[in-house]
Amino acid sequence: MTSSLRALGEFGLIRRLTRHLRTDRSVIRGVGDDAAVLRVSPRRAWLLSMDMLVEGVHFRRSQATPYQIGWKAMACGVSDIAAMGGRPRFAAVSVGLPRRLALAEADGIYRGLTSAAGRFRVNLVGGDTVRAPQLVVDVAIIGEAQPGEIVLRSGARVGDRLLVTGRLGGSYASRKHLTFTPRLRESQYVVRHARPNAMMDLSDGLASDLWRIAEASRVALVVDEAKIPVARAAGTVWHALMDGEDYELLFALPPRRAAGLLQAKPHWLQVTDIGVVAGRGTNVQLLTKGGRLRVLRPEGFKHF
Amino acid sequence: MTSSLRALGEFGLIRRLTRHLRTDRSVIRGVGDDAAVLRVSPRRAWLLSMDMLVEGVHFRRSQATPYQIGWKAMACGVSDIAAMGGRPRFAAVSVGLPRRLALAEADGIYRGLTSAAGRFRVNLVGGDTVRAPQLVVDVAIIGEAQPGEIVLRSGARVGDRLLVTGRLGGSYASRKHLTFTPRLRESQYVVRHARPNAMMDLSDGLASDLWRIAEASRVALVVDEAKIPVARAAGTVWHALMDGEDYELLFALPPRRAAGLLQAKPHWLQVTDIGVVAGRGTNVQLLTKGGRLRVLRPEGFKHF
Repeated sequence: MTSSLRALGEFGLIRRLTRHLRTDRSVIRGVGDDAAVLRVSPRRAWLLSMDMLVEGVHFRRSQATPYQIGWKAMACGVSDIAAMGGRPRFAAVSVGLPRRLALAEADGIYRGLTSAAGRFRVNLVGGDTVRAPQLVVDVAIIGEAQPGEIVLRSGARVGDRLLVTGRLGGSYASRKHLTFTPRLRESQYVVRHARPNAMMDLSDGLASDLWRIAEASRVALVVDEAKIPVARAAGTVWHALMDGEDYELLFALPPRRAAGLLQAKPHWLQVTDIGVVAGRGTNVQLLTKGGRLRVLRPEGFKHF
Repeated sequence: MTSSLRALGEFGLIRRLTRHLRTDRSVIRGVGDDAAVLRVSPRRAWLLSMDMLVEGVHFRRSQATPYQIGWKAMACGVSDIAAMGGRPRFAAVSVGLPRRLALAEADGIYRGLTSAAGRFRVNLVGGDTVRAPQLVVDVAIIGEAQPGEIVLRSGARVGDRLLVTGRLGGSYASRKHLTFTPRLRESQYVVRHARPNAMMDLSDGLASDLWRIAEASRVALVVDEAKIPVARAAGTVWHALMDGEDYELLFALPPRRAAGLLQAKPHWLQVTDIGVVAGRGTNVQLLTKGGRLRVLRPEGFKHF
């Protein structure tokens, strides 16, 4: 019998804890994607996601400004909604504040939250403010989409190309993990012009997140090491695969639509074809620069 | 200049931190009530609320079972939606788990959450699971209501009677604060049959919460000490006024509708008339058993 959180790991834990959830027909998609999908009307779905940042686990106050902590908490939520193909609409935030926190720091957190909310047109409508031993910022975000626009992790099909936005890795070194711009504009463009079959945002590291697409879609992915766009701060492909907190988009779509997107894309949209959905059966392999296929183990950020 | 959280207090802090929020016309009511009110369609509004429980602040693991912590987190959210006159529909939960927590404890928290969700027909659809130094459980809940059913804190009118459900005080002594039944059925009955002008749930103590109705509605309340329904575990009226975490409903409605409700109410609905909206201008006074009027200071639970 497994008896500790660490032995189970994050995904095993979530699977275990959520195994008894019962939902009615108004829930199109519950646990297991970037956001839950809720049926509001035949022509409209709402998306619901939460992201909790805890001091000492996700950030240190010595290394992140209060503004950055607030910005990041809201930006993570926006990224989740973008990853589903939706537009963010409303957010609420629970903030746990240490009693000795300076008021200027609390102000800074809310300035970061409201600044990101304003930038991405999210109505920040309330939440909860409580005392806590460490700083905790938890954003619940509601997005909106037409049912036909929603892109799950589970839709990748054999033959699809795999694309990513931006450049990967080195997010801690470059501070991008605190200041990133969620790929909402990119998501809206890709969803409208290239209709991806599957999509997610990269939070735990490309290697780890590829496994989530592979597991959700029950497909085997092959990623070409030479094609992975490596951020300058990452240095090596290994870091681009493992570092995490990129908050770029990973998506799968048929070759013709991928080629069309790559040819006709606007200048501000940076996308790279990094591989292919090569077959059935959950697997992720890396085609190395040396021409060998090897299983790509998910060794990104461990939560427990 | 104020410079510490403690000096401001919870309400001053929330006012300060939320003073720059900007929302568009889809937000009917933002910060300042039990839940935000969002416009979904002309005939439907959604309610959004969050409640965060932090170990060492809201509970101790030595005094509450994991099941009770989970139950309470969800029940607080249901109570918020009931306080607005709505029905809960969807919830997401962020859970911060200490690394050394036993798996059985994590299971217990989720059993409490799902048990309360099942009881009140809430679809629990996901959230976030992270590591944290202390246990943190934060529930975001979405409720639904027809716009005409929604009851704010700000609608109390001069002449209205003040009613409460249940009996007040002693919630810590009786453990009711961990095991309470949110007054959803009561709210639905009252909203349909007596159309209150203002309503809220009692969380910080009757004295403190009366001030919130008084402030939101800009009215002067007079509460009759002799009429306050005192819970057995409370012992004295003082405790019924100050203890907090009752999770009963406090509502205001015209005398004729109040009388009709008190006469025709079903046996399961326990309501008591405790006072009156006596005039304009924010104030709360207690008519003592000795026949004197004195200002009722809000000395309930302090968050900071």
